[in-house]
Amino acid sequence: MSGLPGAGTSPGLGEASDLKFPLGAKFREPLTEARFQRLFGGTNEHQATRAEPRSSRLCRRWRRLASACSGPGAWRLLRARLPPLRWLPHYRWRAWLLGDAVAGVTVGIVHVPQGMAFALLTSVPPVFGLYTSFFPVLIYTLLGTGRHLSTGTFAVLSLMTGSAVERLVPEPLGGNLSGIEREQLDAQRVGSAAALAFGSGALMLGMFALQLGVLSTFLSEPVVKALTSGAALHVLVSQLPSLLGLPLPRQIGCFSLFKTLAAVLTALPRSSPAELTISALSLALLVPVKELNVRFRDKLPTPIPGEIVMVLLASVLCFTSSLDTRYVSDSGCAEWRIKINGLLLDCSHALHLMSCFPTHLSRPVVWLQVLEDSLLVALVITFAVQPPLGPPSIAGQDRLPIDSNQELLRNGISNLISSLFSCFPNSATLATTSLLVDAGGNTQLAGLFSCIVVLSVLLWLGPFFYYLPKAVLACINISSMRQMFFQMQELPQLWRISRMDFAVWMVTWVAVVILSVDLGLAVGVVFSMMTVVCRTQRVQCLALGLAEGTELYRPLEESHKLLKVPGLCILRYPTPLYFGTRGQFRRILEWHLGLGEGRKETPKLDGPPDAVAEPVRVVVLDCSGITFADAAGAREVVQLARRCRDAGIHLLLAQCNASVLGTLTQAGLLDRVTPEQLFVSVQDAAAHALERLEPTGPKTCTV
Amino acid sequence: MSGLPGAGTSPGLGEASDLKFPLGAKFREPLTEARFQRLFGGTNEHQATRAEPRSSRLCRRWRRLASACSGPGAWRLLRARLPPLRWLPHYRWRAWLLGDAVAGVTVGIVHVPQGMAFALLTSVPPVFGLYTSFFPVLIYTLLGTGRHLSTGTFAVLSLMTGSAVERLVPEPLGGNLSGIEREQLDAQRVGSAAALAFGSGALMLGMFALQLGVLSTFLSEPVVKALTSGAALHVLVSQLPSLLGLPLPRQIGCFSLFKTLAAVLTALPRSSPAELTISALSLALLVPVKELNVRFRDKLPTPIPGEIVMVLLASVLCFTSSLDTRYVSDSGCAEWRIKINGLLLDCSHALHLMSCFPTHLSRPVVWLQVLEDSLLVALVITFAVQPPLGPPSIAGQDRLPIDSNQELLRNGISNLISSLFSCFPNSATLATTSLLVDAGGNTQLAGLFSCIVVLSVLLWLGPFFYYLPKAVLACINISSMRQMFFQMQELPQLWRISRMDFAVWMVTWVAVVILSVDLGLAVGVVFSMMTVVCRTQRVQCLALGLAEGTELYRPLEESHKLLKVPGLCILRYPTPLYFGTRGQFRRILEWHLGLGEGRKETPKLDGPPDAVAEPVRVVVLDCSGITFADAAGAREVVQLARRCRDAGIHLLLAQCNASVLGTLTQAGLLDRVTPEQLFVSVQDAAAHALERLEPTGPKTCTV
Repeated sequence: MSGLPGAGTSPGLGEASDLKFPLGAKFREPLTEARFQRLFGGTNEHQATRAEPRSSRLCRRWRRLASACSGPGAWRLLRARLPPLRWLPHYRWRAWLLGDAVAGVTVGIVHVPQGMAFALLTSVPPVFGLYTSFFPVLIYTLLGTGRHLSTGTFAVLSLMTGSAVERLVPEPLGGNLSGIEREQLDAQRVGSAAALAFGSGALMLGMFALQLGVLSTFLSEPVVKALTSGAALHVLVSQLPSLLGLPLPRQIGCFSLFKTLAAVLTALPRSSPAELTISALSLALLVPVKELNVRFRDKLPTPIPGEIVMVLLASVLCFTSSLDTRYVSDSGCAEWRIKINGLLLDCSHALHLMSCFPTHLSRPVVWLQVLEDSLLVALVITFAVQPPLGPPSIAGQDRLPIDSNQELLRNGISNLISSLFSCFPNSATLATTSLLVDAGGNTQLAGLFSCIVVLSVLLWLGPFFYYLPKAVLACINISSMRQMFFQMQELPQLWRISRMDFAVWMVTWVAVVILSVDLGLAVGVVFSMMTVVCRTQRVQCLALGLAEGTELYRPLEESHKLLKVPGLCILRYPTPLYFGTRGQFRRILEWHLGLGEGRKETPKLDGPPDAVAEPVRVVVLDCSGITFADAAGAREVVQLARRCRDAGIHLLLAQCNASVLGTLTQAGLLDRVTPEQLFVSVQDAAAHALERLEPTGPKTCTV
Repeated sequence: MSGLPGAGTSPGLGEASDLKFPLGAKFREPLTEARFQRLFGGTNEHQATRAEPRSSRLCRRWRRLASACSGPGAWRLLRARLPPLRWLPHYRWRAWLLGDAVAGVTVGIVHVPQGMAFALLTSVPPVFGLYTSFFPVLIYTLLGTGRHLSTGTFAVLSLMTGSAVERLVPEPLGGNLSGIEREQLDAQRVGSAAALAFGSGALMLGMFALQLGVLSTFLSEPVVKALTSGAALHVLVSQLPSLLGLPLPRQIGCFSLFKTLAAVLTALPRSSPAELTISALSLALLVPVKELNVRFRDKLPTPIPGEIVMVLLASVLCFTSSLDTRYVSDSGCAEWRIKINGLLLDCSHALHLMSCFPTHLSRPVVWLQVLEDSLLVALVITFAVQPPLGPPSIAGQDRLPIDSNQELLRNGISNLISSLFSCFPNSATLATTSLLVDAGGNTQLAGLFSCIVVLSVLLWLGPFFYYLPKAVLACINISSMRQMFFQMQELPQLWRISRMDFAVWMVTWVAVVILSVDLGLAVGVVFSMMTVVCRTQRVQCLALGLAEGTELYRPLEESHKLLKVPGLCILRYPTPLYFGTRGQFRRILEWHLGLGEGRKETPKLDGPPDAVAEPVRVVVLDCSGITFADAAGAREVVQLARRCRDAGIHLLLAQCNASVLGTLTQAGLLDRVTPEQLFVSVQDAAAHALERLEPTGPKTCTV
């Protein structure tokens, strides 16, 4: 630009037609890559040290670990790994404490019924849901980096864990169990769920050691949304038996949704009127309260705690009324009630449960099964639970950078430690996190207040929940899934912005609904990776022409006022060149250059007939869009160079980036092409091409 | 370029330092996208019809199908689907017939022993290998498009089919079966293998109807090579019991390779001396002959048919000598011999076998299993068997375009029809195809000669093979895998060209060896897709500077002679912007622009201190490398625009391609950015940026 002051005096853009030789005007000596290197020298050393923020992170990590042996290094590492040391000294007690207390108590009040309800999904007694709402929250307060993240029970995880638990400890065929048998069964299930939490925690720590948090970038937003939306449908259907008071065994594996629906439909006449009434009343209370909370979100200081009110109300009602005995004797579901009394606060009991767990898991087959399920849980936490809490939704609103590896460590430790207290797999959750933000929480200290609420319930309110019917918890589960169903409303917008994303959403959702949550996630991730590969393949190769009066080369199909010189073909191939696009690259270039078998059969349709008569003599390949090349793609370019040479076509490459040039050189491009054929820009290459074509007297034609 | 004649008179490239204002020199009015559209008009209609060769192929296909109802349309369709109608009229009898005959007979002679040997891999009696070498070849002659492709038995497929067959019809636990029981078992196995061929054929036809041949582009060359190399190891190990004369049951499923090895090692003392001798002699004959064939490939008119010589020799020897009775009585493997006499040419017998097959497959569980295995076989044929015969290896040498959908149709019909004649799954094979090319085959007619050879063996030579020991066939299997082992020699070269491809090779190979062929293929395909996604993420965002005396903007790290204006930051983000790169895009731009939380903590390390003092006021984002954007990526750009506006940074986008611009507009970019901020080139955007910066008097500094 600096060397081109004369351009300002060029004729007006419309008058270019009286230029005799518009393309041949030399603006300066065309620069090849080699000449550019000679003129502008190599890289300077002091700049080479300047790295992008995330390059060679593993390398830096090791250096950091090594430096941790020194005193200040150890303190830095401790500060990095124990976040309270960083934020607690800066805590503004007056400004933040009230907000944290209010938000913490609000979230705690939500945690109590939700924890008990999600325990139902996990097929363990509800008190373990309370445990899972207590220990991980406490651990997170000590280790979490995201100021606003709230951790605890999570529906998708509970659903998955529940399926795994039912597979490990199936319901006996007989159906009706005595109290002691039921307790033993529950103990085994609690042990299995804790084993899954332990296993997934250990695996997540292993993934942290390998810095695999980067895996979460493989997950696209449509996959996460479709997954949660599909899981919500699973939750809804799995709660139907409890809602209707039908003592049906839980269906697991593929097609479980349809199996459950069929079982419910056939058993519908046997549904208990008492529990139907309870369900109807609960939903009639919960749904409007939730609606009110959403509608008057800005006006209410804290949301109305509908769930806990309902839980208390139902417990007290069942305790005082005769309703209790009636429906228990009807449906025989006394065992399904919460055994909160017997288990609560009985730490020795919890330890007893834990001791059941190794004896049950002694067989290697079971170990393998637990390992497999743990891996699935760990992957779901890494993949699906983390990112929606990361960049797109929360951090996007509040600009909080979340380090996915730190979160992996945090989730790993949280699951590992809490599993020793009979907790089931847990993770940060979107619902309580946004609640925490809305209620004015400022730091992780809010978690401490949540813990206090849950602990007081565990200590003093427990006995009241003895008479809580299962149907109430089922209603809480269903109403907590409400938001996830509403995600479907975004589908039309998604369709408008990107058909591909819409397809990913639909495929994932269908796979989750028909198969299962874990398989559906796998299908979604693989499919969304396939769409990326597809998108690199769908890009068109464009023939470029010169915009008169400028030095710009633009796609010919954009405008009919662009100039094209006969015998010169300028092509832009704007996509990575690798195994997936290799075949297309060859086909398209054959087509444009008239190489290969199709030469005679397919006359070219573009341009006037005289352009067809003149064969391509020079081709400029604009490589600015080729972001990377692999071995197969590089070989394709080398082969193209060979074929061009055989066909008497002069091939010029323009604007290759450094890594692509490296790969091409490794594949042997310079055996076919001289360095004089590599140019720094399309303009330079075109100028050189016109010099070659000049002797024959080029006729310019407006295509 | 046409409007820039003054550039030729610019000062020499070295003297640019005496230019006071190198970047501000206006070369012409900066062009925004909107102004470019006004000046150069919209797309012209007659050009819009000009499509790339493969766009909307499905659409054209339907149109073609519709036009097939007319007379000439039907003839065209018939010609397209029955290739002999295309090539037979142009057949040059004098020039081609001899070559076709020689090549056909050569390939036929190879087919006979190889078919019998691969039948062993498939766990069916060898005569069905001969059937599979006859019927599909005949069908291919009628339907194939690749002139040089040779179809028939294929080791990888046979291995997979064998595993599936053993799972469907397991060896009874007792071990020693009577003749009739053995025959019934064999009949069931033949039925199962044929059912797999039928199912995979039907599935491939379904995939053809959906035009899913494009799936084969998802497979990279390293995956195919690692797959075949790993499968060769499986073949080697699975043949060890036959080689040593050990009557061990075949291991299936994951880790089968290690299980077989362990079983062979424990049973090693029981190995039969007679079969050990036969194996040693066979290998001593086969390996040197193969070596000779490879070494004197150019000098020999046809390769030495070592396999068929050995088969005949071994049959005659066993027939005449007493060796036969001795080792049969020793190892009790009389049942393992070829029952060619009893089954050969007995069409009624074959039909009887087929009638067994529905009764055996009557249970729905078995049907599901067959369907699943058929799907795997169909996918392996589509994915793995086709591409190595397509572009990279054969077509690359001989410039034969292979239509992957036509090949899908051909493989589908071939498997479907041949399964009715008790054939097992088959496909085009690399080994015989390259043999056909080497032996001088010209057209598909060579297949007819192969058929004649196989048919004569079936008709007249069959009885001789009655006494053929299994060990000979095992040796043929092992020696036919020789080339596949040699693929490992290419590994060092692969490492040099691309580490990523090397990693794909290793991961696929390890998965194939440890797990199984089908699972290994799945792992390889998913992993190679992950590398594509990774490669799009690993690209660096580059800050650009002006090369003095030119209008070129090049990465600053390339040279220290590039110019950078304080307050102006020109960034090139050279990779697709989608869910996988979104987070990196945000992090990098925050880092470059000093946005976000890292603003105060991380002082920028690039450039001299005065450049740090001046904050970025205008940023130009060169989008030429953003080949596509999805909804998540587009939202990230919109968010960036908002944050830039909030921070008082003027954001200019340059050289967005049409589809990216469309996605960005859909995501609401124009709410944040005026059309005046979208430029057609980096040069235009930089000129505009300098106009904005001008009032403060920019100081140019050489970074």
